[in-house]
Amino acid sequence: MSTNDIYIGVDGGGTKCRAVVSVNGEIKGEGLGGGANPYQNLERAKNSIETASLLALEDAGLRPTDISKAVAGLGLAGVNVPGSYKAMKDWQHPFKEMFLTGDLHTACLGAHGGDGAILVTGTGSCGYAMVNGKSLDLGGYGFPLGDQGGGAWLGLEIVKAALLSYDGLGPKTTLEDWVVGKLELRGSLLDVIERLQNQPSSEIAQLALGAFNAAKAGDPVSIKMIKEGAAYIDAQIERLRDFGAPRLTMVGGIGFLWKEWMKPENVAFVSEAQQPPEVGAVYYAQQEYKALI
Amino acid sequence: MSTNDIYIGVDGGGTKCRAVVSVNGEIKGEGLGGGANPYQNLERAKNSIETASLLALEDAGLRPTDISKAVAGLGLAGVNVPGSYKAMKDWQHPFKEMFLTGDLHTACLGAHGGDGAILVTGTGSCGYAMVNGKSLDLGGYGFPLGDQGGGAWLGLEIVKAALLSYDGLGPKTTLEDWVVGKLELRGSLLDVIERLQNQPSSEIAQLALGAFNAAKAGDPVSIKMIKEGAAYIDAQIERLRDFGAPRLTMVGGIGFLWKEWMKPENVAFVSEAQQPPEVGAVYYAQQEYKALI
Repeated sequence: MSTNDIYIGVDGGGTKCRAVVSVNGEIKGEGLGGGANPYQNLERAKNSIETASLLALEDAGLRPTDISKAVAGLGLAGVNVPGSYKAMKDWQHPFKEMFLTGDLHTACLGAHGGDGAILVTGTGSCGYAMVNGKSLDLGGYGFPLGDQGGGAWLGLEIVKAALLSYDGLGPKTTLEDWVVGKLELRGSLLDVIERLQNQPSSEIAQLALGAFNAAKAGDPVSIKMIKEGAAYIDAQIERLRDFGAPRLTMVGGIGFLWKEWMKPENVAFVSEAQQPPEVGAVYYAQQEYKALI
Repeated sequence: MSTNDIYIGVDGGGTKCRAVVSVNGEIKGEGLGGGANPYQNLERAKNSIETASLLALEDAGLRPTDISKAVAGLGLAGVNVPGSYKAMKDWQHPFKEMFLTGDLHTACLGAHGGDGAILVTGTGSCGYAMVNGKSLDLGGYGFPLGDQGGGAWLGLEIVKAALLSYDGLGPKTTLEDWVVGKLELRGSLLDVIERLQNQPSSEIAQLALGAFNAAKAGDPVSIKMIKEGAAYIDAQIERLRDFGAPRLTMVGGIGFLWKEWMKPENVAFVSEAQQPPEVGAVYYAQQEYKALI
């Protein structure tokens, strides 16, 4: 049918992207692609988005050529960097129309259907709120410049504390053993430099759990860094709420670990997402397209 | 003369290396080469060392072929990493004999003629002491895992504090303006991620001076981070002195800035180097070669 109303919503991050196809207002198919962060890798981002979109069309029972009839909404990590935003806008894309925004914006639209806030604590960290057409971005500067409360930040703090403890230049901490055990080092922290220097932040983030466990077991060094991370997250939530966000959703792999250390009123303010980010990207495409026509 | 006693001493770091030639116990020539840190770039290190050695031979009035009569002592950054040490040892080098050790060891031999300690605060930081044939290494894990008190560490702390201030998630600091001005950003801290992500640590170290200046002007955030760095350096000096080092020399570009913030007794313990590290590398070669023959 040529009268079909086809929308594609894409949520793109550093390691993968998800696309959904909406036909006449209903989600009919979904597809998965590789990393789609144009700041990290522009060509890969374009390929991943096209791949995921074609898979979603197929899943919805549509033909590959229908991609040219679809209005796409892309919510991508990395487009907060002006050069990456422009490069994606200049893409000779295969869609009928393409609307581009940040992944936090579409996550917010998905989670709340409208105004609200998103707090990410995965490998990195950042905050975002959208209220009455205005938005607020917090953090998102990437590791190691920012990303306090993210797994990579915490992993780095763990390694730094372990090395200070090893050198006798900082307080003793059980994190020394955690790092050696987790990285399967040959019995010595000194191998840490060979293993961790120049690794992607996701590798360092693998260490983060150690500080939560050690803090629970009473290690003062771990308690201090976990409290520092939780205070940063509390401050983010308070800024987002003060901005006027009526709801807030936490996304990312280690959010549930922070909840135990956050202020109770901030934990109580957190709610589950109503829809995933790729569905938020469909909402975004619909909203922008209707404003256009 | 075939009876000449020729030694070459090389001090190799990340950006350059220096070689000197000693003939019958006297320094006769010197040469400069490129970066010679085999952990960063093995082939470049070998080339730089050979280049600097040949230039030093020429400067001493010797022939290039005399390199095969010279006993070389190499004090190189990066050979604390086991894989890099082995790769350099396996080098089919042009010397009569080659003795390999860390750059701190040869710096110490040069500075003190024997037992003593070295504290480096340049882009990175580390400590080293040699006493009665035993040595102690502190830090040197590289940025950002370690290197507290180094310029890159301080630069990163400055950027982190500036971004927290900008986001309203940390105390206000004048470092915000410093970072924007120093990086010649287009009036906004947000450009910082494009400028600094994935830059070498030497680039981030360019920011370090800002915290010393702001601390002097009374900025509490800067005072806190400068005091943290100075406490780390004080702790290093105390560990090195407790190890038995009778003297200590500070090397690296920002050591003089830290002195204003260090404990007076630690400042008083610091003395000037007697000889540069490349001369220490000659001492090392002489010492090892005499033990061998």
